[in-house]
Amino acid sequence: MNKWPAEVTIKEVGPRDGLQNETDFIKTEDKIDWINLLSKTGLSYIEVTSFVNPKWIPQLADALEVASKIEKVPGITYAALVPNLKGLEGAMAANVDEVAVFMSASETHNRKNINKSIDETFPVLKEVVGEAKKAGKTVRGYVSTVFGCPYEGTVAIEEVIKVSETLFEMGIDELSLGDTIGVANPRQVQEVLAQLFKRFAKEKLAMHFHNTHGMALANVLASLEMGITTFDSSLGGLGGCPYAPGASGNLATDDLLTMLDGMGISTGVQREKLTKAALFIQEKMGRKLNSHYLQAFNPSRCPVNGGGA
Amino acid sequence: MNKWPAEVTIKEVGPRDGLQNETDFIKTEDKIDWINLLSKTGLSYIEVTSFVNPKWIPQLADALEVASKIEKVPGITYAALVPNLKGLEGAMAANVDEVAVFMSASETHNRKNINKSIDETFPVLKEVVGEAKKAGKTVRGYVSTVFGCPYEGTVAIEEVIKVSETLFEMGIDELSLGDTIGVANPRQVQEVLAQLFKRFAKEKLAMHFHNTHGMALANVLASLEMGITTFDSSLGGLGGCPYAPGASGNLATDDLLTMLDGMGISTGVQREKLTKAALFIQEKMGRKLNSHYLQAFNPSRCPVNGGGA
Repeated sequence: MNKWPAEVTIKEVGPRDGLQNETDFIKTEDKIDWINLLSKTGLSYIEVTSFVNPKWIPQLADALEVASKIEKVPGITYAALVPNLKGLEGAMAANVDEVAVFMSASETHNRKNINKSIDETFPVLKEVVGEAKKAGKTVRGYVSTVFGCPYEGTVAIEEVIKVSETLFEMGIDELSLGDTIGVANPRQVQEVLAQLFKRFAKEKLAMHFHNTHGMALANVLASLEMGITTFDSSLGGLGGCPYAPGASGNLATDDLLTMLDGMGISTGVQREKLTKAALFIQEKMGRKLNSHYLQAFNPSRCPVNGGGA
Repeated sequence: MNKWPAEVTIKEVGPRDGLQNETDFIKTEDKIDWINLLSKTGLSYIEVTSFVNPKWIPQLADALEVASKIEKVPGITYAALVPNLKGLEGAMAANVDEVAVFMSASETHNRKNINKSIDETFPVLKEVVGEAKKAGKTVRGYVSTVFGCPYEGTVAIEEVIKVSETLFEMGIDELSLGDTIGVANPRQVQEVLAQLFKRFAKEKLAMHFHNTHGMALANVLASLEMGITTFDSSLGGLGGCPYAPGASGNLATDDLLTMLDGMGISTGVQREKLTKAALFIQEKMGRKLNSHYLQAFNPSRCPVNGGGA
């Protein structure tokens, strides 16, 4: 019988990765209230916003105000996405705990996403990482399209390794491997991780799955079996698939918790408080969010947390 | 690294388990046309209808006509659900290849579902199994609520073993273990299977997962790792969760295929022909079905079948 880790860290990316892929602008005070609710759930990590050019992502144009005004709870790491030195300035002004830089493993997605080739991106991120580390921040790196690219299809493992190595050489503390379009399968996840474990400590790798094809939790299970203990997710499954309106996007934090709780894997996250935060943002979005937990939410009939066999 | 089976048998239950949980009545000729399309996909097993009292399930009141008029393709097993001797008469009249009997592992669900206690159900099924075997049919048994009951919550493994043993003693050829409300988690799946493997050959066990909480494919993966090679699923995810309108019900055949194809596990099912059958029944249902495959269906942007790493 397989063994799984006893504890897992859930990194909540909803306020950034969720909201940036929604068409609606959520009011600044609602974002702040939501993050404050998230801070009470037992989550130890919340990515609160992105300091990108508001022309690119108007939904997060209030990054500085949000990151500055949330009530920071000791013990929680508050992170923000940063594309360049200008973005880093904002993140520093808001005094976030951690900075996240990002790029893609596939050339075409990288160009479409940040308007630079992969090789042109490296020096920009190197400067950001260097400055952030100098300022005493920890830095997270994201690699997108690790398991497939919407433009190129298959992505060679060599490309993933090249980008990962370069980011670690810059000094990032953790690397999040993104299945941007939700095409990874469990075999692929284990094969890619086996290659990466030859080069990097598994404790420095996190998985960022999307549920576009319903495989996110199967891929989490495959990762757990490889010893991965850090997973990104977005409460309520906020953030659709940009290539398929109506389809699932980010793995939902509430669904991830269902599986981990059921398996007896500790996360520190409390279901009732998480649900309170989910219902809050669901109301602000004005539509039922597409996590399985919220879709099936019907406490009197479907007991989710009944426990083991 | 884990090893998975090289081949898996998918048993399509959409025409029965899918349609019986939909509120609409699908026209008899549409059901027949749909099953005929399913027969061209490479599937080797199709559960075509249920010979239950039409008062219980009016959606399948045309069982005899459907089961009699489909074009049977050699090599495919056409099965029908049968609750009692009267149902068996219909199944025999339609000359189905296999008969499926059903009951629950939990007392309350069994009473609500078939209006009898578990002990009262045994002699009824024993007679059906005996008569079906005498007539040269193979017989499948279904156990519902193996991993949780909507009324009782946790279901003791002893109850599952008792019902399973009694069904095998009656002479059933295969037992399908149902996660009726979609609450199973991978650890529980492996623990339950480990107990059942002490008593029954794994080749005689099939898994029937619902995706209510998004864990169906993770549970498939957990089952594959235990050596299970037969899975039930419903095309398009037809058949909602009766306890949560709008929530996912049956594991979708098209989503199961995405994962198995991606992992290089052979099923014999051809994606294009399966999609043709899925789009046909989707049109007849008059709404977008809730499988991830159909929700994300957008061939030009989201290449699902790009293959391995």
